[in-house]
Amino acid sequence: MANFKGHALPGSFFLLFGLWWSVKFPLKYACRKNKKVFYLGSKAGFQRVEVIEGIVKAVFALIGMLAEQFVPDGPHLKLYNYKAQEWDHLMNWQHSTMYLFYGISGVVDILTHATNVVPVAFDRLMLSIAVFVEGFLFYFHVHGRAMLDIHVHILLLTSIFGGALCLFLEVFYRGNIILELLRTSLCILQGSWFWQIGFVLYPPGGDPEWDQKDHNNMMFITMCYCWHYAFAWLLLAVNYTVVVWLVRIKMKEAKPAEMGLLKTSEWEQESEDEI
Amino acid sequence: MANFKGHALPGSFFLLFGLWWSVKFPLKYACRKNKKVFYLGSKAGFQRVEVIEGIVKAVFALIGMLAEQFVPDGPHLKLYNYKAQEWDHLMNWQHSTMYLFYGISGVVDILTHATNVVPVAFDRLMLSIAVFVEGFLFYFHVHGRAMLDIHVHILLLTSIFGGALCLFLEVFYRGNIILELLRTSLCILQGSWFWQIGFVLYPPGGDPEWDQKDHNNMMFITMCYCWHYAFAWLLLAVNYTVVVWLVRIKMKEAKPAEMGLLKTSEWEQESEDEI
Amino acid sequence: MANFKGHALPGSFFLLFGLWWSVKFPLKYACRKNKKVFYLGSKAGFQRVEVIEGIVKAVFALIGMLAEQFVPDGPHLKLYNYKAQEWDHLMNWQHSTMYLFYGISGVVDILTHATNVVPVAFDRLMLSIAVFVEGFLFYFHVHGRAMLDIHVHILLLTSIFGGALCLFLEVFYRGNIILELLRTSLCILQGSWFWQIGFVLYPPGGDPEWDQKDHNNMMFITMCYCWHYAFAWLLLAVNYTVVVWLVRIKMKEAKPAEMGLLKTSEWEQESEDEI
Amino acid sequence: MANFKGHALPGSFFLLFGLWWSVKFPLKYACRKNKKVFYLGSKAGFQRVEVIEGIVKAVFALIGMLAEQFVPDGPHLKLYNYKAQEWDHLMNWQHSTMYLFYGISGVVDILTHATNVVPVAFDRLMLSIAVFVEGFLFYFHVHGRAMLDIHVHILLLTSIFGGALCLFLEVFYRGNIILELLRTSLCILQGSWFWQIGFVLYPPGGDPEWDQKDHNNMMFITMCYCWHYAFAWLLLAVNYTVVVWLVRIKMKEAKPAEMGLLKTSEWEQESEDEI
Repeated sequence: MANFKGHALPGSFFLLFGLWWSVKFPLKYACRKNKKVFYLGSKAGFQRVEVIEGIVKAVFALIGMLAEQFVPDGPHLKLYNYKAQEWDHLMNWQHSTMYLFYGISGVVDILTHATNVVPVAFDRLMLSIAVFVEGFLFYFHVHGRAMLDIHVHILLLTSIFGGALCLFLEVFYRGNIILELLRTSLCILQGSWFWQIGFVLYPPGGDPEWDQKDHNNMMFITMCYCWHYAFAWLLLAVNYTVVVWLVRIKMKEAKPAEMGLLKTSEWEQESEDEI
Repeated sequence: MANFKGHALPGSFFLLFGLWWSVKFPLKYACRKNKKVFYLGSKAGFQRVEVIEGIVKAVFALIGMLAEQFVPDGPHLKLYNYKAQEWDHLMNWQHSTMYLFYGISGVVDILTHATNVVPVAFDRLMLSIAVFVEGFLFYFHVHGRAMLDIHVHILLLTSIFGGALCLFLEVFYRGNIILELLRTSLCILQGSWFWQIGFVLYPPGGDPEWDQKDHNNMMFITMCYCWHYAFAWLLLAVNYTVVVWLVRIKMKEAKPAEMGLLKTSEWEQESEDEI
Repeated sequence: MANFKGHALPGSFFLLFGLWWSVKFPLKYACRKNKKVFYLGSKAGFQRVEVIEGIVKAVFALIGMLAEQFVPDGPHLKLYNYKAQEWDHLMNWQHSTMYLFYGISGVVDILTHATNVVPVAFDRLMLSIAVFVEGFLFYFHVHGRAMLDIHVHILLLTSIFGGALCLFLEVFYRGNIILELLRTSLCILQGSWFWQIGFVLYPPGGDPEWDQKDHNNMMFITMCYCWHYAFAWLLLAVNYTVVVWLVRIKMKEAKPAEMGLLKTSEWEQESEDEI
Repeated sequence: MANFKGHALPGSFFLLFGLWWSVKFPLKYACRKNKKVFYLGSKAGFQRVEVIEGIVKAVFALIGMLAEQFVPDGPHLKLYNYKAQEWDHLMNWQHSTMYLFYGISGVVDILTHATNVVPVAFDRLMLSIAVFVEGFLFYFHVHGRAMLDIHVHILLLTSIFGGALCLFLEVFYRGNIILELLRTSLCILQGSWFWQIGFVLYPPGGDPEWDQKDHNNMMFITMCYCWHYAFAWLLLAVNYTVVVWLVRIKMKEAKPAEMGLLKTSEWEQESEDEI
């Protein structure tokens, strides 16, 4: 699906997950300081949320795979065209493969959080592998295209491999809020950048095409990528602030007495961290 | 041995080790939760297994070295052809060198687990070095070949260097089940990919040759590599499930009472890990 | 601002911060051993200093952004020249983007140390991202220039990406004096190298221009870069020595008795570290 | 000094240090298990040894710098030839720069172990930087030379950057015997490879010159590099065995009773490590 929609679809998936994580991780972080505020904050609540996230991920991946295979101009599960003696719709197959690994990651999420068979932290490893495979396929995807086309995909690779590395580190530093926020920001960046790629390569509504060989376009696009990232952090900051603020209000309502104690101990702990 | 067998042989070695590890590590992980289930689960049992593994590795490496040297068209330990003023059978010598480092790793395994002279974790370092040397030699191996030939070997390098990195991390995170499974998956991938390379470069049974310069072939092969990896994880998942399931049955037979306690404490530990 | 001043300005910023850090971190390290020596050494004192540092950083970034936008030949916030159908003053916009991220880092510093909303270690992550973005933009900045021009910027990238990596490690090893000194040295190096780039590319005062294609110039510049680094460490060593020496004098004045005890326990701790 | 001696000299320095470390680290490791065996095994003894090592390193670096500057065809501290309008003896200056950083590392070693001013682990950082600078200068050193010449230096870079990385890890995992042995092996490799480079590029005694463009020579050299590494580990293994064996004998003589206790507890500790 080398068209505008083919980039907007995955872009929306990533944006959705990025936005969801920008709520989930601050919530988890704020709740960790006071476990009994409300239901979601409890361990069982978060476990259920993780399972749902896994299901949504697996379903999205399935939809993506089916869409790539059964769109009118798709391969319909045919891999080799024996008449023309050539591979059939390799692009769609590559995209299906990317979705496949996200699907596996979704299934692993479910197994990790719904059963106690799979070792904890395996969910992070599998998501890291899924993101890495996406980047790996993209890396060999753009071979031989126009300069600007290659460049926008290379920029995309930065956020993809950055995300994969971040997730791999989470295997060892599980629950580290810094890594979780970094991962979230890179996920939002990836989502919004997919949309940007769509606009650059397939200008909708009769806009003039971009000159694929203009060096200035490359320089602008690189800068634009950084703006997307600044925007991703802005979005994350807004959501973080709202979530933390809501949790604080809830906490004050619940038990004003304990609150004071909490603030002190929390402060001390942070001091220790610093030292 | 630049032919089908020359790729199938190491491929089988890696597959064998990958499959063995896909049984060993889950078994170790499952037994760690209950040390007295059956003999193999005990510390002494695992130590003996490690020694045997080291012996098998060293013997395989010796077989590989002898095979590379003394096959009919091999160098028979001659390195320089003084008549022709050129190096003799460099390929076979390179392969022998790869096997040599695996042999050293096997010997170190034996020394680490049979004596208490060598510092623990040295076995991981030496295996990491052996895998790295394999990748290092392969990297300079394919210089100046056809495009597809280079590409299949570059893909192979991903799993090799990934495995070396993973093993190096195990020096610091010894016994981490996540890293052990990751290493196993990369080992199975390497084994099955060796077979794939054999089929691609030396199609057996009169199959048509692959077009070495077709860009579509490159794209298909990249995707195919990812499928191999998905397959490696599937295999690993099946073995993991069977092993964990068998250990649970054994445990229930042995002591149904303690089992309940175990499940609780295990659950709590996982909760702590998560937090 | 592709001229001498355009390199001297950021160079001075980095030098200033490098020199400040070369005082701050040794001071913090020396005070950690005896918390009550003088006001700055206390936790609250350092917290206030961090807030001021954040404010200065944000203000400098703002000045940089305004300077890039509103110098006589600047873009004055115009991004696209519709008449000429081309991007307007992309260089200035790129530099503004770099300053933007440092500005964000400054704001995060303030929030981290003045409130207890932002998770500790987030200041390091954001500074790491700011430095990384600077390097990222520089990397695509110099495409297609003369050999020597590219080379001096590639050398600059070494210190930039080194600094970004060092700051990222500080997220996990917060307060590690080794990493802090390494970061400081790389910051001073970056600052002095910016000045050197100015002198090489825009020789002031009618000096002869450098031959951009002479291989010997490249080799000299590489070596010169190492000398700058040696000089950075020399500067750091001088400041470190003065600071530690001043703190020791203060300590001796304050309580000669406790001093002896301190030395012993400190010595023991270092012995433990070694083991 | 682009001749045989110019490679044999640093090669001998590295070999000497590698061999010394292959005695020191196993000795330290063996003594750590029983601190009172003999004088060198005590903390003060090792501290004195470290200081001596630092002095030797600084003196060697000084000799190297003076040799590079004041050999008959050296620059004699002249950097720019104003007559010919070109840089003077850049090679010698580059080598001097390399030695300079090793000299700094030597001075830091002395300060770290003779005083308690410098933070522990700073010695490892500075040695890591010295090794990195060596690699950094070599990387831009070989630009534009013949293929084989470049290749032998690239191989050298592997051991240099590997050593720098290993030393940087030692900042965080100080006293880790695995990292110390790895570093030692890479140091021996570097030393013996310098000799090999000398033999390849400047065949002594009227030997025929190597064909710089023969692909087979490149493949042989790569393999030869691996053999050097296997040889480095063999040397290390021999020294390790002798040292551990001597310490054990000393221990048995000293106190046969405590020995038994030690073995038990040591065994237990290793079991814990494994789990």
